[in-house]
Amino acid sequence: MSKKSIVVIGGGTGTHTVLRGLRKFADQLDIAAVVSMADSGGSTGRLRDEFGLLPIGDIRNALTALAAEGDQYDSLMRQLFLYRFNRGTGLEGHNFGNLFLTALTDILGDEVSAIDAASHLLKVAGRVIPVTTDNSHLVAIYEDGTIVEGEDNIDESSDFLHLAHIKTLTLTPESFLSAAAEAAIVNADMIVLGPGDLYTSVLSNCIVTGFREAILSSKGILVYVSNLMTRRGQTIGMHALEHIKEIEKYIGRAPDMALVNNSNFSDELLSRYDEEGAHPVLNNCVDGVCTIQSLPLVSEEVVVLTSGDKLKRSLIRHDSDKLANELMKILGA
Amino acid sequence: MSKKSIVVIGGGTGTHTVLRGLRKFADQLDIAAVVSMADSGGSTGRLRDEFGLLPIGDIRNALTALAAEGDQYDSLMRQLFLYRFNRGTGLEGHNFGNLFLTALTDILGDEVSAIDAASHLLKVAGRVIPVTTDNSHLVAIYEDGTIVEGEDNIDESSDFLHLAHIKTLTLTPESFLSAAAEAAIVNADMIVLGPGDLYTSVLSNCIVTGFREAILSSKGILVYVSNLMTRRGQTIGMHALEHIKEIEKYIGRAPDMALVNNSNFSDELLSRYDEEGAHPVLNNCVDGVCTIQSLPLVSEEVVVLTSGDKLKRSLIRHDSDKLANELMKILGA
Repeated sequence: MSKKSIVVIGGGTGTHTVLRGLRKFADQLDIAAVVSMADSGGSTGRLRDEFGLLPIGDIRNALTALAAEGDQYDSLMRQLFLYRFNRGTGLEGHNFGNLFLTALTDILGDEVSAIDAASHLLKVAGRVIPVTTDNSHLVAIYEDGTIVEGEDNIDESSDFLHLAHIKTLTLTPESFLSAAAEAAIVNADMIVLGPGDLYTSVLSNCIVTGFREAILSSKGILVYVSNLMTRRGQTIGMHALEHIKEIEKYIGRAPDMALVNNSNFSDELLSRYDEEGAHPVLNNCVDGVCTIQSLPLVSEEVVVLTSGDKLKRSLIRHDSDKLANELMKILGA
Repeated sequence: MSKKSIVVIGGGTGTHTVLRGLRKFADQLDIAAVVSMADSGGSTGRLRDEFGLLPIGDIRNALTALAAEGDQYDSLMRQLFLYRFNRGTGLEGHNFGNLFLTALTDILGDEVSAIDAASHLLKVAGRVIPVTTDNSHLVAIYEDGTIVEGEDNIDESSDFLHLAHIKTLTLTPESFLSAAAEAAIVNADMIVLGPGDLYTSVLSNCIVTGFREAILSSKGILVYVSNLMTRRGQTIGMHALEHIKEIEKYIGRAPDMALVNNSNFSDELLSRYDEEGAHPVLNNCVDGVCTIQSLPLVSEEVVVLTSGDKLKRSLIRHDSDKLANELMKILGA
């Protein structure tokens, strides 16, 4: 029996989580990760600015999620890609995986060749595909008319726009869906959007020209995995239905299915999120809009914050295995 | 028939050259590179200062010399280790191989484990061994009493001490021969010193405590490969005999054999070296001191200077294959 094709669309930690879970089913699945090319902050942003390359942080995230851990050296290569320098003038804060991809791109001439080579060296189970190979930046227009350019600035806009919502998200200049991403989406048996920040990790893919058409022409089942918590400056006050409506606005159809967590959180955790104005995303489904499954999807592992983690939202994560198991059930694989 | 053991002692470009040639005989040889731990300049010096690690540049040199090129990915790993960032704040000038070894050392806990892991990932034909795992710096006392500390400062001292000679070379604090280096030297069938800068690449190994005793107790044939040209601030006015006398002073015996180039250089090249006060090292052997073989050992390949190469001495190199072939003849392997 041929393998089922699954495409995960996103970019950040959430995409890493779902890919890490799906990787265990690599013998039954043809896995593709289509990742956002809008990142402009941190190590990725510095390399983007100084080397004129496409942003590679989300690529690195997906590669490490799908990397092998067969023997100690496989595991070591993956650890290297996850390693971040915590000292050294100019090195501090850089992910080694980002530097690896930068050097590979310089040697091989383009990012796609670098991704292919890194995939081989990391023995990646699947393919990691940039949603576009055009170099552009996110632009968010808020309800109050404020315009913010750059993914990192949008992420940080919560400081001054903590209750605002984004009215329109675009890319400047216009960027076009890569042929590899189009083929993966059109031919997929299942397309998974998220989890990840709605605007900067999920919709940042959806607004690439050609993405909407690819989704509409795909016969694959479209599943949205909602974030566990809202994000100040982006999704405050929004629950599952509002997330789905936003996606529908950009891609022209609602997901066939949405997965929303229904595990409870401790009062302590809720109050820490509340201090940032963030709250759990609840299932407020209305019949006929889409099918929402409420499930316990939270990881019970304690997240250890490293020196680079500044936000409390890092405290809870989806559980890789629970998420992958649910997706496999829906896929009927 | 068991393999012959050969130990190459040095550090920089010259060691890379001889190892690269010997690597082709890896099926007949057990190759060990014992490398200097005195480097304190450039990318290595920055990492040494900021990460508190042993200097790794000479390790990287030897690893890339012995790395496999079996398939495109072997070749790519080697290219990565040779790659140097030519832009990026704080990244410019760093060798990727140095960053790789730094990240590996942080992950694995010590430099020797990092070298072992890198050797595996690069499919190194042989072993690369730090002459010491103690962290110390070179100190040169010149004939005029000037004291200069640090390998990079000694290299640059030619700017103000261009005719001076080094009277005494030591390490501060005292450093001790590593057990692995001792075993390799004592059990070698052949020990090759150089080519390389006499003080900063060759003698920087010889002055490690225990080195002299290891050489004296080894039954291996000791071969010195002289540099092609002298170096201002270090070896001006010196020819093969004077190089050999200096080595004998530090290790307590003369080499059994010295290899000195006798290829002619063009007038243009000689005049460019002459502008720096440098001249070819000639065979001025005196009977009974040691056996010197005069041979054509110069590479005919044109050396392409990259942005980081500042010295004219980079214009000519030993030929890897000629050098390795002569060493194999002497070894009778």
